[in-house]
Amino acid sequence: ASGLLSLSFKTQEMTETAHETNGHGYLGTFVGKNGRLAILRVHSHALVTIDLQCYEEDNIAQLDNLLNALETKLKVILNGNITRIKRLPALVRGAEVDRYWPTADGRLVEYDMDQIVYEEDSAYQNIKILHSQQYGNVLILDNDLNLAESDLAYTQAIMGSGRENYAGKEVLILGGGDGGILFEMVKQKPKMITIVYIDQKVIDACKKYMRGTCGNILDNLKGDCYQILVEDCVPVLKKYVQEGKTFDYVINDLTAIPISTQPEEDSTWEFLRLILDLSIKVLHPSGKYFTQGNAETLTEALSLYEEQLGKLSCPVAFSKEVTCVPSYLEHYCGPALWNKLPDDLRSITTVSTFKSIFRTLIFSQAFD
Amino acid sequence: ASGLLSLSFKTQEMTETAHETNGHGYLGTFVGKNGRLAILRVHSHALVTIDLQCYEEDNIAQLDNLLNALETKLKVILNGNITRIKRLPALVRGAEVDRYWPTADGRLVEYDMDQIVYEEDSAYQNIKILHSQQYGNVLILDNDLNLAESDLAYTQAIMGSGRENYAGKEVLILGGGDGGILFEMVKQKPKMITIVYIDQKVIDACKKYMRGTCGNILDNLKGDCYQILVEDCVPVLKKYVQEGKTFDYVINDLTAIPISTQPEEDSTWEFLRLILDLSIKVLHPSGKYFTQGNAETLTEALSLYEEQLGKLSCPVAFSKEVTCVPSYLEHYCGPALWNKLPDDLRSITTVSTFKSIFRTLIFSQAFD
Repeated sequence: ASGLLSLSFKTQEMTETAHETNGHGYLGTFVGKNGRLAILRVHSHALVTIDLQCYEEDNIAQLDNLLNALETKLKVILNGNITRIKRLPALVRGAEVDRYWPTADGRLVEYDMDQIVYEEDSAYQNIKILHSQQYGNVLILDNDLNLAESDLAYTQAIMGSGRENYAGKEVLILGGGDGGILFEMVKQKPKMITIVYIDQKVIDACKKYMRGTCGNILDNLKGDCYQILVEDCVPVLKKYVQEGKTFDYVINDLTAIPISTQPEEDSTWEFLRLILDLSIKVLHPSGKYFTQGNAETLTEALSLYEEQLGKLSCPVAFSKEVTCVPSYLEHYCGPALWNKLPDDLRSITTVSTFKSIFRTLIFSQAFD
Repeated sequence: ASGLLSLSFKTQEMTETAHETNGHGYLGTFVGKNGRLAILRVHSHALVTIDLQCYEEDNIAQLDNLLNALETKLKVILNGNITRIKRLPALVRGAEVDRYWPTADGRLVEYDMDQIVYEEDSAYQNIKILHSQQYGNVLILDNDLNLAESDLAYTQAIMGSGRENYAGKEVLILGGGDGGILFEMVKQKPKMITIVYIDQKVIDACKKYMRGTCGNILDNLKGDCYQILVEDCVPVLKKYVQEGKTFDYVINDLTAIPISTQPEEDSTWEFLRLILDLSIKVLHPSGKYFTQGNAETLTEALSLYEEQLGKLSCPVAFSKEVTCVPSYLEHYCGPALWNKLPDDLRSITTVSTFKSIFRTLIFSQAFD
């Protein structure tokens, strides 16, 4: 069988090398003059895999025809005893715009990004804004997909999914440099929203390129009912604790892997606990705290988080909500898991969200 | 540089073959005794790609370490002049459960399917129901992802997103064998819902394994206000036209590539037009027709569809709506494009939705 398949590559003027595999079936590589490479494996456990690599300027239709011919030939050789035939889209490597942003649980996902809108390294992180046909501009911090212009659903969820009334309230937002929460919340006329965000460059980039998310709200760092403090939130929180200042709402919209100028704690978990503890201390006794719950599939991380709640300096009520964020491609858009929370207790709600050029044509075939 | 990198594979007891590339840079393949294969390419346009293939039972941690070592070595060799380093999750081939279901616009997407719940070939199509951690059970017809238990949003959208009142109405559903629309619609107490669906095996499979979508509604083919006709819809529609029977609503939930026992028309487009024309003929003069508009990124297909509307036997009003369906991973969850439709004209609404094992570790690096 491998001989017959090999022939298909040889007729394309590709040079065969048959490799010694120590009992792991047939493995042949075929190199063409135009940089093409084919890898044909007939595995000992009834699986045939074919990888085809080529340059962008190659004749893709010709390669598709080659794969079609191989598929037909395999069907004949195997007398139709084929369990599954699968051909995958090509992986593109070395392209200007990177379209592969794997999910938090390690799955390979190709987006439809077609343009680098902005890229810069700040003192804190790598900032990228890429354009996607479906999601509009997408903010990517340290190669972690943060938010797209399509993701109003995320902003609404972390604001309590329309169940909260922010009119006349004091609100503290940790993170939120994209301006999404701020832009939505000012519409409700709170008494004062204070945003503490560390990275001026992110604010400037979003102001310019994420207007689908922040509208014009980042044009000024101060407005009638809001102020943006471009600072590390840890010392600010400590100052508020010292002053005895409290808020009706604290919304933690910090990036999944937090950044601080003063990393006092060893691990991410301890840092998260520090933020949580300080936040609860500045929360009014009937106040509410909203935060991301990380990826919904990462149930282990979520249980660890719940464990942290037991270690807080004051008792809290806890609820969870799962939401579907368009650009994340991995949120379960399921029913909200809202318990009725007691009004006389500080409450914590996690909004679970999932994150996460050179050409290879992939083909595999399993047979009985 | 290639020599230094080659050494890393050789220390893993992998046998090198350097291939002649006709000026396309260095291309080396390295084969290990355990079935491992590494492909190292140093392309002439400042790109290094490394593909690593191994069997499932291989030592993955060791391979990750090997990639780490290569990355470190490359940074040294290139004096840190690296534009981008990217390592992608492994592609798994030959696994029992296929997790790769590319989107309609040809992008590679890996799902979190972990179990084959059901698989059978009916007289009409291949039917698969796979379990996904995020989306529940997922119905896949002829390798096209149809609907998951998480996708109430699709059902709601194709029913008019809550803007329609079905109480006391006559409704015809073409397709819809998963029972999702039926289950939701009976709650509104219409006068009569008639479903015409061709494939009994799909109904039976959904009744058993897609209860998150259909509840108990498929347990009986007939109820107080509904009937399911297990037939090809074309002759049924023709009979209704002949009898002069009309409906307040026609919902076309047929699969993207339609199935008929009597294919009279040459192309998919002509078949779609036949269905559309017959549907409009059985639509009450102020009735409404809802249908899928295919993938939102496939704007060309959508324009072609709109073109068909001009060829209908009676004038219609037309509106579009875009919705976000959790399991499809490619819908833009954008604002609905609803125009106010005239009440005295048959109206058509398209709901745009997008569709769409052996291990290779993928690594590439571009440098200045």
